[in-house]
Amino acid sequence: MTTEIQLNALKQVAEIFDKHVPFHNLLGLEIKRYDTEGVEVVIRMKLELIGNIHQNILHGGVTATLLDVVGGLTAFSGLVSSREDWTIEQLEKRLTTLGTIDMRVDFLRPGRGEVFTGTGCVIRSGNRVSVCRMELHNEEGTHLAFGTGTYMVG
Amino acid sequence: MTTEIQLNALKQVAEIFDKHVPFHNLLGLEIKRYDTEGVEVVIRMKLELIGNIHQNILHGGVTATLLDVVGGLTAFSGLVSSREDWTIEQLEKRLTTLGTIDMRVDFLRPGRGEVFTGTGCVIRSGNRVSVCRMELHNEEGTHLAFGTGTYMVG
Amino acid sequence: MTTEIQLNALKQVAEIFDKHVPFHNLLGLEIKRYDTEGVEVVIRMKLELIGNIHQNILHGGVTATLLDVVGGLTAFSGLVSSREDWTIEQLEKRLTTLGTIDMRVDFLRPGRGEVFTGTGCVIRSGNRVSVCRMELHNEEGTHLAFGTGTYMVG
Amino acid sequence: MTTEIQLNALKQVAEIFDKHVPFHNLLGLEIKRYDTEGVEVVIRMKLELIGNIHQNILHGGVTATLLDVVGGLTAFSGLVSSREDWTIEQLEKRLTTLGTIDMRVDFLRPGRGEVFTGTGCVIRSGNRVSVCRMELHNEEGTHLAFGTGTYMVG
Repeated sequence: MTTEIQLNALKQVAEIFDKHVPFHNLLGLEIKRYDTEGVEVVIRMKLELIGNIHQNILHGGVTATLLDVVGGLTAFSGLVSSREDWTIEQLEKRLTTLGTIDMRVDFLRPGRGEVFTGTGCVIRSGNRVSVCRMELHNEEGTHLAFGTGTYMVG
Repeated sequence: MTTEIQLNALKQVAEIFDKHVPFHNLLGLEIKRYDTEGVEVVIRMKLELIGNIHQNILHGGVTATLLDVVGGLTAFSGLVSSREDWTIEQLEKRLTTLGTIDMRVDFLRPGRGEVFTGTGCVIRSGNRVSVCRMELHNEEGTHLAFGTGTYMVG
Repeated sequence: MTTEIQLNALKQVAEIFDKHVPFHNLLGLEIKRYDTEGVEVVIRMKLELIGNIHQNILHGGVTATLLDVVGGLTAFSGLVSSREDWTIEQLEKRLTTLGTIDMRVDFLRPGRGEVFTGTGCVIRSGNRVSVCRMELHNEEGTHLAFGTGTYMVG
Repeated sequence: MTTEIQLNALKQVAEIFDKHVPFHNLLGLEIKRYDTEGVEVVIRMKLELIGNIHQNILHGGVTATLLDVVGGLTAFSGLVSSREDWTIEQLEKRLTTLGTIDMRVDFLRPGRGEVFTGTGCVIRSGNRVSVCRMELHNEEGTHLAFGTGTYMVG
């Protein structure tokens, strides 16, 4: 069961991350899905995101950015899902403390493709700190990168 | 002692990273210095790089990108410095294999400032794999982030 | 298809890790299974491995050790499986270069239990460097820790 | 200025870690120094700690253990130093929540030597979470490993 407050909180966060973060707009980053089950974040290949011009490969910094955004959203979704009695004020306050403490990125293969999709899951959930694992695939399902991040959530 | 071939190799790499990587141009990333002693990479704050619009803070993905670029350049500089008898062909071949295997970013403080400078050093140098530590400071010398990256160099 | 040379190489490595590494003997670490499909490493709880005497919890250093051993064995198994035409001399030489470059451990829950089992998989396989992910569970299937390690294999 | 309560808290913690953690006794781990300036943890080479019998090298798990212990003690020392008005009850409560969230170990060189000394510093200090960097040297000052750990402190 998901409460209306939970749903609305996630909807608002998706709206902010999708439309009101300048760097996400610069990259063309889109939140495709965001609910208590998880998140799907997408970036489409374009010339400006290339790191290696001879091989048409996504810059590793774009990969790291996408994984970090997925991790933060996943951590917050886990926090929202952890209690049914959140007030909207409590969740807004928690959102202001959301931040990455540390992140590891494992680059598995060169970032070739047209559409890059990031997904994630919570592996340690806490009231203050959550740890998430994230993955990046291209449109053919090729696994390009893994992430592991520790997030402040309260 | 640094040979002409070593100097030219680093100069060429700096030129590529500074001018011919589309994602570096998008961010406004500049190689300020690159020699056998190390590297200094700079990004200037601008609206498009902001992650938190209420607090005017650099997006963590920009931090991760800058640290990764510093790490790769540092690893390559270490490789170039490791031998005085490199041929230009050998170094060009090594450059094509340069890549990040994994990276950890530790976010220490919110990314406030006008000019962000990344520097680094090699902590494990090898003929195939090097490990580097990287740092990010703003123009006031505030330490914003640490990175640790493992790079393929051969 | 697994060749006899592959099978024998893994059998020898399991024998060394199981019987001839003094620190493994000190911990009581056992290789339960080791083949081209993967590895299962076990440690049984005993007083000497405790980190927190009030709560009877496995020391985090034991967790890290077990995950690192699993990662190294997994990386080597991946290398052995990658070619069917290895000679025994080639594999023996590769074994001498096997080593951990870096490892991340994520501690998910306190290390409670009687039997701790570590398993792993290769996420990036290479001729020189492999990256593995490892997991630690107790006898009830509770997931206690994750590891991610980068290993030199050649 | 360091208060008596701060000094006593660190002294008690050093006593516990030095004498009353079974796994520390098994390894022969000793707290040489522990005050508001930092910590020095030592392990002496002995047969049982060897990972590679042909080369007389310390097992990587011992390195990871020592770095993790240094990190936890460093994080707690940082917390103790952060306020002069701690009560002994508050610090005792904080000690019960002290724990490693995640740790990265970078193995720089084979663990050769007779006496291994770990030291550390806080790079991000917080009321709930601290991040520390740790180092391991042998008796000749050779730098063997780096660690970076994120610790729960409240």
